[in-house]
Amino acid sequence: MTNNNYCVIMAGGSGSRFWPLSRDSRPKQFLDILGTGKSLLRQTFERVNKLFPKDHIFVVTGEQYEKATKEHIPELNDAQVLLEPYRRNTAPCIAYANYKIYQINPEANIVVAPADHLIINEDDFINTLKKGLEFVSQDNALLTLGIKPHRPETGYGYIQVDNESSVSDDENLKRVRTFTEKPNPEIAQAFYESGEYYWNSGIFIWSLKTIMQAFEIHLPETDNLFKRGLDIYDTSGEKDFIQQTYGQCQNISIDNGVMEKAEDVYVYCSDFGWSDLGTWSSVYENSDKDENNNVVKNGNAINYDAYGNIIYAPEGKLVVIEGLEDYIVVDTNDALLICSKEKEQNIKRFVTDVKVEKGKDYI
Amino acid sequence: MTNNNYCVIMAGGSGSRFWPLSRDSRPKQFLDILGTGKSLLRQTFERVNKLFPKDHIFVVTGEQYEKATKEHIPELNDAQVLLEPYRRNTAPCIAYANYKIYQINPEANIVVAPADHLIINEDDFINTLKKGLEFVSQDNALLTLGIKPHRPETGYGYIQVDNESSVSDDENLKRVRTFTEKPNPEIAQAFYESGEYYWNSGIFIWSLKTIMQAFEIHLPETDNLFKRGLDIYDTSGEKDFIQQTYGQCQNISIDNGVMEKAEDVYVYCSDFGWSDLGTWSSVYENSDKDENNNVVKNGNAINYDAYGNIIYAPEGKLVVIEGLEDYIVVDTNDALLICSKEKEQNIKRFVTDVKVEKGKDYI
Repeated sequence: MTNNNYCVIMAGGSGSRFWPLSRDSRPKQFLDILGTGKSLLRQTFERVNKLFPKDHIFVVTGEQYEKATKEHIPELNDAQVLLEPYRRNTAPCIAYANYKIYQINPEANIVVAPADHLIINEDDFINTLKKGLEFVSQDNALLTLGIKPHRPETGYGYIQVDNESSVSDDENLKRVRTFTEKPNPEIAQAFYESGEYYWNSGIFIWSLKTIMQAFEIHLPETDNLFKRGLDIYDTSGEKDFIQQTYGQCQNISIDNGVMEKAEDVYVYCSDFGWSDLGTWSSVYENSDKDENNNVVKNGNAINYDAYGNIIYAPEGKLVVIEGLEDYIVVDTNDALLICSKEKEQNIKRFVTDVKVEKGKDYI
Repeated sequence: MTNNNYCVIMAGGSGSRFWPLSRDSRPKQFLDILGTGKSLLRQTFERVNKLFPKDHIFVVTGEQYEKATKEHIPELNDAQVLLEPYRRNTAPCIAYANYKIYQINPEANIVVAPADHLIINEDDFINTLKKGLEFVSQDNALLTLGIKPHRPETGYGYIQVDNESSVSDDENLKRVRTFTEKPNPEIAQAFYESGEYYWNSGIFIWSLKTIMQAFEIHLPETDNLFKRGLDIYDTSGEKDFIQQTYGQCQNISIDNGVMEKAEDVYVYCSDFGWSDLGTWSSVYENSDKDENNNVVKNGNAINYDAYGNIIYAPEGKLVVIEGLEDYIVVDTNDALLICSKEKEQNIKRFVTDVKVEKGKDYI
C-alpha cells in the first residue's frame, strides 16, 4: 500500500527573543534550548520520523541555514531541504512545499509543523497526527491542532471551537468558529474559563488537494506565482525561480491568508503537552528547577538568596549569583544578558539597540 | 651627597574579595582594577619612583608572584624582588626588607607602602613622604600616614591623634594616641565627627635604625630569626634561609607587633586622596560613573533601568543589563559573579564555596 503521508517542518524562524543565545546565524530551532542534548529541529525531526519515513519529511528553511539544517538532520537529501531566499511568513513556505510534494505524490496528505516547539507526550502527539491524517484523507478539510489551555496565556492565539458541531465519531474533532489574535489578560481569562477556546499551535493537517484548492481560492496570486514553476521544480532552474518568486510574493501567514477565510476548517482538540517555547519564561516553565526554583542550563551555578531565575552559561563556565529574583541571565562567549523576567518582551528592542550601537557581530 | 632614602613596596596580597577578577594566580595588585591601563603594582612603582631612584625600590611578594612582579616592573633587578615562601603578614615582610637594606645602607630611611592602594594626588603624596623622611632622619620616630576621613567608613582602622602634641613646626605631624580596629557604624560616626581620628593607611616611614631597634624590643623572636641571616643575605643560601625562617616565624602585622606597642609613634595627617581599594564598592566609589551612576569597566555595556551597578567584562564582551540596581557584575572567561553591593562582604565565603564545590581552577 502506498504511503501518502508527508510532513513539512517549517524551520525558517530567526527570532531575537532568545538573544544572546540565539543569533542571526543560529536561531532558536538550532539550539538545544532545553538542555536535552538535541536541538529543537533535531527533536522535531525525530518526533515526526516516528510516523513518517525519513524520505517523506521536508524541511523549509532560510537559504543561510542550509548547512546547519543538513548538519542537524543528515538523513535528509538535498531535495528535502527547501530553501527560502527571503522570509515571507508561512503561506509562501507552505505553497512552495505543496508544489514540491505535488511533483512526487498528488495524493499526499500533509502535516505541517514548526521546528521549534516543545511536545511532551510524543505518543499522544503521534496518535493525534494519525487520526488527523485519517480524517483529512477522507474529508475535504483543513485541520489545525488546538491545545487545551492550562492557564490564561496572553502569548498565544486562540481558536474558538463549535462545541455543537459533530463531524465524526471523534469528540475531539470540532469545527472552528473563529481564530483570535493574542488576547489581553482579561480576555485570556475569559477564554480560559469558557471551555470553548484552544491554543492555536500552528500545526496543520490537510490533504494536498484540499490545501492547493484553498490557495487557489484564498491566495490566488501566491498560488499563481508558485504554479508557474510546475516544470521547474526539481530542475537546475528551481533556485533562480524561487528567488524570483519569493521576491514577488506577499508576506502573509497561512492563518491570515487561508485558515481564517476558508470553510471546512476543523480543529483537533489536543492535550499532549505543548509549548511554542516563544520566550525565556516559557523555557523556564518547561524546565526542571532546583530547590529555589532556579533553572540552570549548561553551566555550573552556585546561588545565594537567588530565586526563580533562569541561568544559561557556556559549558564549564561557573556562575555565582547572590540576591537575584526572577531574572534571566544568559551568558555567551561574546555577550551577557541580565534581564528581569517581567521585562523580557523588551529583549527584541535590546537586540535592535545592540545592532545599532554595537554592530551586527553581536546579533 | 648619598641618597639614604629607600622604598619597600609590600605586594604579597592574595585577596579573594575581587573574585572572579582576582585569582590565586593573579591577585589584586596585578590587576588594572580601575581601568587606567596599568596594574596597581605598576602604578605604585611609578608613583614612588618619582621620589626614589629605581635601584632604591624593593618589592616584597609571594614566591609564586616572582614572574608577574618582574613583568610588571622590569626595571627591578633580582636582588630588589624579595620573595616570601609563606604569607606571614606585614611584620616578617618588613623585617626581611630591613635586613636586606641593612646590607646596602645601614643609614637608610625607608618608606613602606602597600602595592594595591589608590592615591589620587601624587604630588601631595610625594611631598608628604619627603617631609616624613626628613622627620625620621632626624628623630627616633616611627611614622605612619593617617588619612583625613571623608565619611564614617567602617572598613578601615583608625588612628587617634594627640592634637595637643607639638613635635615640630609642621602642624600635620602629631603623636599617635591609639590605633583602633575597624569600628562599628556608630563608633565610625563618632570618630568621623571628632576631628581626632584618621584612617590608618598602612604606609610607614622610619629610619632603618629606629625600626630595627623597635623589632629588637617588641618582636625579639622575629628579629632574632632574621638577624641569623646577616651573613647569608645576598648569597646563594638566602632562599633556603628564608624558607626556613618564614617556616618558623610568627604571623603578625607590623601594627599589632610594633606600632601599637612602641613609644615615639607619630602620624602625618594627610589628605592626598587615598583608598585601600579593599572592596568592589570602594572601586565603584573611585571610578567614573555614567548618567545612571553605573561604572562600566573594560567591556561594553548597554543598560536599561539599571542604576548604581559596577560592571566588569573582558575586552570586547557586550553586557546588556535590564532592571538591576546596586549590583556587582563581574564577568571573566570562566566565571561570572552577580552580587548585590550590600552583600559583597560575602564574596570571600562564595570563593571558599567555589573552591570546595567546583575546584581550585576557579579561584
